[in-house]
Amino acid sequence: MNRTATDRYRGVMDRAAELADLESAASLLGWDQETKMPSKGVGGRSNVFATMAGVIHEKFTAPQLGEDLAALVSDSDGLGEMEKAQVLELNRLYDRAARVPGDLVRKVAETQSKATAVWAEARSNNDFDSFAPLLEEMYNLKRQVADAIGYESDPYDALLEDYEPGARIEDVAATLNEIRDFLVPLVSAIKEAGPPPNTELTAGPFDEATQDKLGRELVLAMGFDMNAGRIDVSNHPFTSGIHDGDTRLTTRYKENLTVGLFGTLHEAGHGLYEQNLTPGLRRTPLGPATSLGVHESQSRLWENLVGRGRSFWMHFFPRLQELFPQHVGSASLDDFYRAINTVRPSFIRIEADEVTYNLHIILRVELERELISGRLDVKDVPEAWNTKVQEYLGITPPSPDVGVLQDIHWAAGHIGYFATYSLGNLYASQFYEAAQRDIPDLETRIEQGDLLVLRDWLVENIHRWGRQYSAEELVKRATGEPLSAAAFKRYLSDKFGNLYGLSSNPA
Amino acid sequence: MNRTATDRYRGVMDRAAELADLESAASLLGWDQETKMPSKGVGGRSNVFATMAGVIHEKFTAPQLGEDLAALVSDSDGLGEMEKAQVLELNRLYDRAARVPGDLVRKVAETQSKATAVWAEARSNNDFDSFAPLLEEMYNLKRQVADAIGYESDPYDALLEDYEPGARIEDVAATLNEIRDFLVPLVSAIKEAGPPPNTELTAGPFDEATQDKLGRELVLAMGFDMNAGRIDVSNHPFTSGIHDGDTRLTTRYKENLTVGLFGTLHEAGHGLYEQNLTPGLRRTPLGPATSLGVHESQSRLWENLVGRGRSFWMHFFPRLQELFPQHVGSASLDDFYRAINTVRPSFIRIEADEVTYNLHIILRVELERELISGRLDVKDVPEAWNTKVQEYLGITPPSPDVGVLQDIHWAAGHIGYFATYSLGNLYASQFYEAAQRDIPDLETRIEQGDLLVLRDWLVENIHRWGRQYSAEELVKRATGEPLSAAAFKRYLSDKFGNLYGLSSNPA
Repeated sequence: MNRTATDRYRGVMDRAAELADLESAASLLGWDQETKMPSKGVGGRSNVFATMAGVIHEKFTAPQLGEDLAALVSDSDGLGEMEKAQVLELNRLYDRAARVPGDLVRKVAETQSKATAVWAEARSNNDFDSFAPLLEEMYNLKRQVADAIGYESDPYDALLEDYEPGARIEDVAATLNEIRDFLVPLVSAIKEAGPPPNTELTAGPFDEATQDKLGRELVLAMGFDMNAGRIDVSNHPFTSGIHDGDTRLTTRYKENLTVGLFGTLHEAGHGLYEQNLTPGLRRTPLGPATSLGVHESQSRLWENLVGRGRSFWMHFFPRLQELFPQHVGSASLDDFYRAINTVRPSFIRIEADEVTYNLHIILRVELERELISGRLDVKDVPEAWNTKVQEYLGITPPSPDVGVLQDIHWAAGHIGYFATYSLGNLYASQFYEAAQRDIPDLETRIEQGDLLVLRDWLVENIHRWGRQYSAEELVKRATGEPLSAAAFKRYLSDKFGNLYGLSSNPA
Repeated sequence: MNRTATDRYRGVMDRAAELADLESAASLLGWDQETKMPSKGVGGRSNVFATMAGVIHEKFTAPQLGEDLAALVSDSDGLGEMEKAQVLELNRLYDRAARVPGDLVRKVAETQSKATAVWAEARSNNDFDSFAPLLEEMYNLKRQVADAIGYESDPYDALLEDYEPGARIEDVAATLNEIRDFLVPLVSAIKEAGPPPNTELTAGPFDEATQDKLGRELVLAMGFDMNAGRIDVSNHPFTSGIHDGDTRLTTRYKENLTVGLFGTLHEAGHGLYEQNLTPGLRRTPLGPATSLGVHESQSRLWENLVGRGRSFWMHFFPRLQELFPQHVGSASLDDFYRAINTVRPSFIRIEADEVTYNLHIILRVELERELISGRLDVKDVPEAWNTKVQEYLGITPPSPDVGVLQDIHWAAGHIGYFATYSLGNLYASQFYEAAQRDIPDLETRIEQGDLLVLRDWLVENIHRWGRQYSAEELVKRATGEPLSAAAFKRYLSDKFGNLYGLSSNPA
């Protein structure tokens, strides 16, 4: 063949753009299913998903693509640095996909579909045993996937790579252990500091249309472009970056204020990241967000460090009082600030506060690692779960639906995913400290309702780079240091030390 | 090869199902663009459309599919009648697609995209000359398409086949001539019968939310299943049968009542057809609606024969008065019936009444035939257009935007499409007469608000057959006769003869 590297590169990038377009279509189909699709469309839609997945898989694993990538990896003459990086990233993804046999991919997909149905049934019947065989099958299959992909020492790494490229569980676990050892005594200290704040203030019922109005105002203030996005309602909030100029958030409204309000801020954090990925790179391998952990950092930063912060409400609390005079009209800013920052050990991860949340995550990651290595038997999982909840939070789940059966992740085969939630919290604190350093008057600006200064910092330091830097490189560039637990510990100590009147270092 | 016909058949049908799924995805992308997509998504979406079109074309014209189809056409041993029919239908479509060179397909697509942009500009500037070169180019290309496909005597037939499979323009034109010769004197007679009814009654402003409520009530009464469908708003109303269990109507609301009301009934007629195609066949070649003309018959039947009928409003007018007391509270049923059946020659096709509408269509079909055959030059089209409007409707368009430049069809390359609008009106009358014969108390049932008896007749005789019968066969089976203008002429003579006090046969 006489094709030059430049010719090959063009061909490979055309394929990558097509794949991105097909992913966009699949993403819209998914968004639509959760927000707009009539209920009877389920069967027809699942055919369409299966066909789209097949087409994407077929195009992605086409031998010609593999040959061109291999040729470009060994001879990249005439390609620039960015072009070489594009090739390496696509080759990394191609290589992973090509290593897993088609049969195994199909078995995982079938087991996902069976296991999620059985899991839902088991959860509503509080019957772990009926789910156990499928959980075992899923872990067996994912172990085979890990073996097919290959790993240095821990099979968990092969799975984690899907969500947090480049991360190693050994490093992640060391950091998680550090925050676990910090959080367990902090939770105890807060418990002992007396009864939690009164949360009646946010209990409602808050009118849904007014919640929606508030959410839209806040999201606009954050700089989310409504001409390049939407907000809709779904049972499980999520964000879809469909394609350039089209990023969609979903939220949900309950009678209380917090679910809708903080759900919206959380998704808008994800949305800002999607909306500000470099437009010219969107349909290239380096176009997407760099990792799920970094993605989660953007949502947690806006939800918690900003949205549950006192500075934010110094500006927005009067507006909240205006919108809901009957609920918060006579409350003080500090009453409200305390109410939205209540710390209380609880069973359900997605309802957990900022302090206890990571303990929920850590116990899951610990169990996942034991399970994937084969050191823990599926039958022993419920007991191991309850023991850890007791150890970390001082409470014991009364039944599996609020214990081991509460999350869909394992049934869906998302093993290795949970860690990214905690990484997100750590990144968020570290990014926020860096932003405070770079913008000395950041808190004052937020107190004045100017959130764009923070949005711009995030765009400049994180969003616009897409996957041009790994999470590890990105955090070093943005904050000057590798990821650590330090900023997160400082943040929690300061905030909750003050709120609960603890001594300066509760650990 | 040792593959049996049954093996081959299974493979071919799997490909057909995949193609149907990809069309479903494309259809959702289109629906979304018109109803939900944020404005800045246009560029990204057009990439996705182009990629989806490429994938569909690639899969549809795959040589393996062609070989398997050819083998099955010559050896269908072991296949049942239905299976043979599936093969023939897919082969017909494959054959048409395979005959048109890829280069020509791309040129048409490029010209469509250029021509629609230039057309929109030309229309707003009232400048036919700027559009003329692209119109000429489009007709040249479509003539080449017709030549590539092949035809017996008239190139128009090769294009018409896309919209009305099996129809021949010679027969269609004979029928259109017959209704033209009937309509022209009817329009004159109505004009001479005195001033048209007062349409102040429907002028509004009618509140949009209440119009929406009314529309949903009527659509439910028609038997449209809202658990298998939706209604949304778009600039140009349309219906998308996305897939099984998911049929979507769009409508739009103006200050007047008629645009939204009859637009909704029209689309719901299309929607009932899509919703009641045989579920088990939806992803097969015989799954879709049989022709655009039959599709249009369903929309026009509900919009006009039912929705502009006196029987319908005998039941629903009190509800209308309840919803809009300030507008129609003191009007009589007959005032309202006359207002929604005003006949008045006008320039714009989509605003035309039941009597004048087909004259708008006929003049377009006549010009299309002249243009595609090369007997008429593009530069002479505006004059030819105006002459015909004067001849048929007794008025002359003052400017091209309300004349020759009003429709997007030619710019978009939809040449041969217009005829299906009139065919739809003819089918509708003939179907409705047959339903009246089969259901002797049909009018009484409608007067009581029972529309389901008619819906069921349409499902049984039309919808559920998909493409198992051609339009020609379907109309014979459902009505006992081939399509003719007779029922349509009887319907208009009776209805408008009574309304305008004309002698029994105005022609």
